[in-house]
Amino acid sequence: MGLLRHIEAVNRWDPARFRPLVLGERRVGRIRHDFAPLLAAFPAVFAVETDRVRLRPDPAEPEALTAAVALATRRLVADGAIPNWRGEWFDVVAGDDEQALFRVDRGALPRLGMRAAGVHLNGYVRRPDGIHLWIARRSPDKKLDPDKLDNMVAGGIGAGHGPWSTLLKEGEEEAALPADLLARAHPAGIATYVMEREDGLRDDLLYLYDLEMPEDVVPRPNDGEIADFRLLPATDVLALVRDTDRIKFNVNVTLIDFFVRHGILRPGDPDYVAICRGLRR
Amino acid sequence: MGLLRHIEAVNRWDPARFRPLVLGERRVGRIRHDFAPLLAAFPAVFAVETDRVRLRPDPAEPEALTAAVALATRRLVADGAIPNWRGEWFDVVAGDDEQALFRVDRGALPRLGMRAAGVHLNGYVRRPDGIHLWIARRSPDKKLDPDKLDNMVAGGIGAGHGPWSTLLKEGEEEAALPADLLARAHPAGIATYVMEREDGLRDDLLYLYDLEMPEDVVPRPNDGEIADFRLLPATDVLALVRDTDRIKFNVNVTLIDFFVRHGILRPGDPDYVAICRGLRR
Repeated sequence: MGLLRHIEAVNRWDPARFRPLVLGERRVGRIRHDFAPLLAAFPAVFAVETDRVRLRPDPAEPEALTAAVALATRRLVADGAIPNWRGEWFDVVAGDDEQALFRVDRGALPRLGMRAAGVHLNGYVRRPDGIHLWIARRSPDKKLDPDKLDNMVAGGIGAGHGPWSTLLKEGEEEAALPADLLARAHPAGIATYVMEREDGLRDDLLYLYDLEMPEDVVPRPNDGEIADFRLLPATDVLALVRDTDRIKFNVNVTLIDFFVRHGILRPGDPDYVAICRGLRR
Repeated sequence: MGLLRHIEAVNRWDPARFRPLVLGERRVGRIRHDFAPLLAAFPAVFAVETDRVRLRPDPAEPEALTAAVALATRRLVADGAIPNWRGEWFDVVAGDDEQALFRVDRGALPRLGMRAAGVHLNGYVRRPDGIHLWIARRSPDKKLDPDKLDNMVAGGIGAGHGPWSTLLKEGEEEAALPADLLARAHPAGIATYVMEREDGLRDDLLYLYDLEMPEDVVPRPNDGEIADFRLLPATDVLALVRDTDRIKFNVNVTLIDFFVRHGILRPGDPDYVAICRGLRR
């Protein structure tokens, strides 16, 4: 089945089907053409033009902007045009900028084609027979990607938070890891992609972290999001990524990045150069 | 001065100034428009057309192709149109393909805009106060980039060789490292760039390797290419990359990649996302 298919899958979208969502002159999202008419029902919030959708409220008043967009998107959730209200604020940014402009509910991000940032932590153990990875299995009753395999710790970065504080919070909540161990994690780069899904776009920026785990620490499910954890040889995880769809769509990509950085995937492997290039396109 | 300037510097070239060099229907290089007329002097080898230059010899006969191009480029060296004959064969490939099509002398690669592959090895020591890097200083009488700082080991991949055998050879020749130590190096990804220089294009694919060095092994100059080696705190090397031009142009990039992978450069550092994106563009 191959590795490159996962990188291609998360980079599949058709720009011709979307128009930019702008605040002032800055792009903050992308609206699918067939969704734009639904935004026209809120003329005080969205100005729907043929080649773009403009946010009407004053950019200099982020609180008013947040409230206006929340009002419109709540109505769209009630109408079934946005799948669900998550009750988690996310910061809205322009392009790769990190400056928060206002806030929207996490559930509205795909429909508005807005950037979502998250953290993914690879927990690994060095053994004489090679690197092993702690792999989580998502709870079978999770709404998104139930039962799929996942990184040891992963989570979205809520409004007002950065990657590091999110990592510490999720590591405790999801895997019951002690704070002094999590503090030894180190950043290892990013993965980015834009992917078209049923409900709009996933425009994701994932901050990647590595944590070498001592043999005697075992992550355990703590908040019902994760069913169990297993420690697997990295080469077995590579085979799962290559040959199955057991792993959550974007975790395939964070794992491939780990395999490249740690030399588990090597020059001479099929598509090595294309895989390395694809990881940060 | 900043880090991003190094990534921008190695990605600076103007496609409008070049036309493709093709073998059959495959692009194997890029010819600057003002250099194309010089190739017209060898009509049995190069067909100079307005929108491309075609290699005339039969692609199915790589030895004849190699000999024909060598004859032409040797003449261009004699005429001063190609700076020098290096006496090192490099494999010619199409795009990211690894399949060798024929061979040219290393000195002719920039003028023909052909891909050059190399290996760069980061040698590092883990200490309680953080990662330290072995940094080489190039010999002051080296023709290219004399006296500049360099990775512990680096070298071009000659025809018929792969990255791994090149790493073992250069590690012994340049730094007198024992083979059993070099065997513990692991691949960690690639860096690629296309850069316009006086003498044409550098279209480089660098295979990156990391090697954790024991405290008691000291690399030493072995073949006159390197003047000396110094072990520096990685944060000091980061400052050299950021604030000076002491380091060889492309080694700035391989070091930035190392800083990202090992968390010496962190989210929140200026341009973090742009730097990560730029490394593999």
